Amino acid sequence: MSGAVARLANINVGGAPNAGTSLLQSQKNADNGASADIGLIGLAVMGQNLILNIADHGYTVCAFNRTVSKVDAFLANEAKGKSIVGAQSVQEFVSKLKSPRRIVLLVQAGKPVDDWIETLLPLLSAGDIIIDGGNSHFPDSNRRTKYLSSKGLRFVGSGVSGGEEGARYGPSLMPGGHEEAWPHIKDIFQSIAAKSDGEACCEWVGDEGAGHYVKMVHNGIEYGDMQLICEAYDIMKRGLGLKNKEIGDVFTKWNKGVLDSFLIEITRDIMYFNDDDGTPLVEKILDKAGQKGTGKWTAVNALDLGMPVTLIAEAVLARCLSGIKDERVKASTKLEFVGRTATFEGNKEQFLEDLEQALYASKIISYAQGFMLMQEAAKEYNWKLNKPSIALMWRGGCIIRSVFLKDITAAYRNNPDLENLLFDDFFNKAIHKAQPGWRDVVAKAALIGIPTPAFSTALSWFDGYRTKDLPANLLQAQRDYFGAHTFRIKPEAATEKYQVGKDIHVNWTGRGGNVSASTYQA
Amino acid sequence: MSGAVARLANINVGGAPNAGTSLLQSQKNADNGASADIGLIGLAVMGQNLILNIADHGYTVCAFNRTVSKVDAFLANEAKGKSIVGAQSVQEFVSKLKSPRRIVLLVQAGKPVDDWIETLLPLLSAGDIIIDGGNSHFPDSNRRTKYLSSKGLRFVGSGVSGGEEGARYGPSLMPGGHEEAWPHIKDIFQSIAAKSDGEACCEWVGDEGAGHYVKMVHNGIEYGDMQLICEAYDIMKRGLGLKNKEIGDVFTKWNKGVLDSFLIEITRDIMYFNDDDGTPLVEKILDKAGQKGTGKWTAVNALDLGMPVTLIAEAVLARCLSGIKDERVKASTKLEFVGRTATFEGNKEQFLEDLEQALYASKIISYAQGFMLMQEAAKEYNWKLNKPSIALMWRGGCIIRSVFLKDITAAYRNNPDLENLLFDDFFNKAIHKAQPGWRDVVAKAALIGIPTPAFSTALSWFDGYRTKDLPANLLQAQRDYFGAHTFRIKPEAATEKYQVGKDIHVNWTGRGGNVSASTYQA
Repeated sequence: MSGAVARLANINVGGAPNAGTSLLQSQKNADNGASADIGLIGLAVMGQNLILNIADHGYTVCAFNRTVSKVDAFLANEAKGKSIVGAQSVQEFVSKLKSPRRIVLLVQAGKPVDDWIETLLPLLSAGDIIIDGGNSHFPDSNRRTKYLSSKGLRFVGSGVSGGEEGARYGPSLMPGGHEEAWPHIKDIFQSIAAKSDGEACCEWVGDEGAGHYVKMVHNGIEYGDMQLICEAYDIMKRGLGLKNKEIGDVFTKWNKGVLDSFLIEITRDIMYFNDDDGTPLVEKILDKAGQKGTGKWTAVNALDLGMPVTLIAEAVLARCLSGIKDERVKASTKLEFVGRTATFEGNKEQFLEDLEQALYASKIISYAQGFMLMQEAAKEYNWKLNKPSIALMWRGGCIIRSVFLKDITAAYRNNPDLENLLFDDFFNKAIHKAQPGWRDVVAKAALIGIPTPAFSTALSWFDGYRTKDLPANLLQAQRDYFGAHTFRIKPEAATEKYQVGKDIHVNWTGRGGNVSASTYQA
Repeated sequence: MSGAVARLANINVGGAPNAGTSLLQSQKNADNGASADIGLIGLAVMGQNLILNIADHGYTVCAFNRTVSKVDAFLANEAKGKSIVGAQSVQEFVSKLKSPRRIVLLVQAGKPVDDWIETLLPLLSAGDIIIDGGNSHFPDSNRRTKYLSSKGLRFVGSGVSGGEEGARYGPSLMPGGHEEAWPHIKDIFQSIAAKSDGEACCEWVGDEGAGHYVKMVHNGIEYGDMQLICEAYDIMKRGLGLKNKEIGDVFTKWNKGVLDSFLIEITRDIMYFNDDDGTPLVEKILDKAGQKGTGKWTAVNALDLGMPVTLIAEAVLARCLSGIKDERVKASTKLEFVGRTATFEGNKEQFLEDLEQALYASKIISYAQGFMLMQEAAKEYNWKLNKPSIALMWRGGCIIRSVFLKDITAAYRNNPDLENLLFDDFFNKAIHKAQPGWRDVVAKAALIGIPTPAFSTALSWFDGYRTKDLPANLLQAQRDYFGAHTFRIKPEAATEKYQVGKDIHVNWTGRGGNVSASTYQA
């Protein structure tokens, strides 16, 4: 208790508008028997681990689960001897929570979240807080924030990343929703979150579904990072003919440089991991990856917002292609490689350095695209998004944690209004340094027939992004030719006849009618 | 009249189940004053042109529009002297239609279509047919087919392609929905549709929203074709330094070969088209293309169905990148090209042949992906899709009309169950022949810094599709490592311990717990 009260006192120090009342209230209720600082519903592994994590930080947690027997089992085992209490009914659960009540839902995304909200509503008081820690789609969190506000309650949709391990020892937490809730949960969230250089990987993200939105983009970027590593592995294995041990050594080296990250580290481990027969287990694993989750949501949202987030899209589609394994097996017997250079030529050492640069550059592009998307979403949905905090939250605890994100945090701290990551000095230098090797890797892979959808799309995007005049002028001419869709003029070509910002149509055929009278017949 | 009756008689000859009754009915009603074979609501240019086209083929058409003055204006001008009648009210409009009534809606997609359906419902009789010729999203057409069936009516959602010109002189028509309606509209639709080698570019597509679905994919493919042409133009212009006239000459040559198509033809015209000052107009056009339409729908649907339709996705995203022109202008001053070869090296003539092959091969991939998507949609939505007919419908009248589609029609006629276009002998030979040049173009573009998102993704997809073992095995290992997501075993590696089809988890770290206990700290 004392520890908990001490922490609640901190909230007061935090100086949030109504934290004071909440403290008085909570102490009053404490006297009335309410003992728990926070409650959590949903005792699957994630939920149990999060409760244990919270309890380890001196808070009293009340655990509940629809199947009550799970509560008893949890209390009798993992929770034994810790500041964890349980409840036999929702009523009892709610009665044990100090005010303003803090209730974390860790249940399946979708209807179960709405069902629990409806179950809790009649039992809660004004100002109480419901926190959805599941993998909810952000539009649901937008809706729930508005809905609970209309009931005088505060909703928080929080991304939780790091898997079961993260939940237990320090996840990356991305809370968003009703900002009034933040001062009441800040200390608990930041104390249980992962730490990076002593900073908690948890900050307030923004309004409504912003927390779950940022988690969605995080997962999309995770799709991209994994695809990039897979392409590097494929090039080393089939392109250079390296053995898994040798590939593991390369990842070991890379993990000491700019690519230093959790995913490179586990890839190293995987390359070294042999099965009982002494051969690498990874080579026995079916090359069929699933999707349809948050990666897909990110790609669809990018299309909805009209943002060119090409790398995540290719990563999702690469999983789709891996998914049709049976058809690929058939295709592999009907479609042969034909090219002017069948095998890798050149200096392997140099090429491995180029490959590291290709992976690094493509990763920079992917994160630049991801932050462009979040920037656009903030505009579109009227969210205040704190970009330095987002990078900070991803630095530790989550799957994409890396040294790389330290540099991104620094970039956005230097200039929170940074328009694009590539305009930051550090990354600007990095992308220029990486270019020659990156180009060679994409070119060589194309020549020898190793698929590099993510490396290639990143390079094409970079070359398009840095291009003042793209060939879309022809596309606009085509649309005006066949559909009278009109076009606009380049400022530098503007005249009295063709004015900037005016919709212009030209009779391309010289013949009558607004539309192409082309004679083409198939 | 007589012409129309004669044609209705043809329906009878067509031998459709209830065409006979419909003929008797229509003649009976004709005696009762109903004079029009078909009615059309919505007198924008598309609607007017379609009416004129129908009238030209001997049918009597009744024209109606919410703003009735438009009807009078149309009758007094464009429609004058033709077998076109008008109506001053919906009641009059309906009363003038022979039974079963055929009503074409050419109004804005979305709510207007539903509003018109509700307006017409009380005035129609069992068996009457409502045809939506707008650019509706296929789920709406699914819904409307079911809804009207429940009312005893027949709904047809028909893709109409070819723009205003096509509507007037021969569109590509893609009707789907309630199949009972087909015998009653077949003769009219096929007579007004474009012809290719004497065959009408109109056949019954399939159930419910299948017609609008195929139109959606058609438009997605159109996005892809246009992007591919833009990339070829960009490479010739910035990569080879050719003048527009020279580029026009290349397109002229290409239009006589395998790329012979409407879009190549108009691109040729555009390259030759000079402004008053004698310089090419296309170079003055703002390189900013819009999207958010059917191309986006196709990409999103591909993601929903988990199909790797990468080329259309890249084409849509390329338009998004073109859309952020201001940011590109800024980026062009901050991001420079760095590479080991700055300019094109090699034989230009050879390279132009390679470029033709790259465009051809990428186009084959795009259509292969499009047909894969439609194949999957047919499974997912329980549609019967007639693939040879789809290719036939796209051969003429529409924007993507080409000799190429003649070969696709042949491929699917040879084998309607063809699993993939690349398995057809003709295209199999073509893709093998094209590979060397295609690879060189993608490689050279990467080396000299010309963006080729569509060429590159097509090649990566091809190299992935023909690969039995993709690196997704590593991805599955990563997911099992950090999230205990389990993996499956390759059949050839199956053992007693690792059985095919079983979900397998391995303790990668050798340390306790189901989940990674990696020590990585950012």
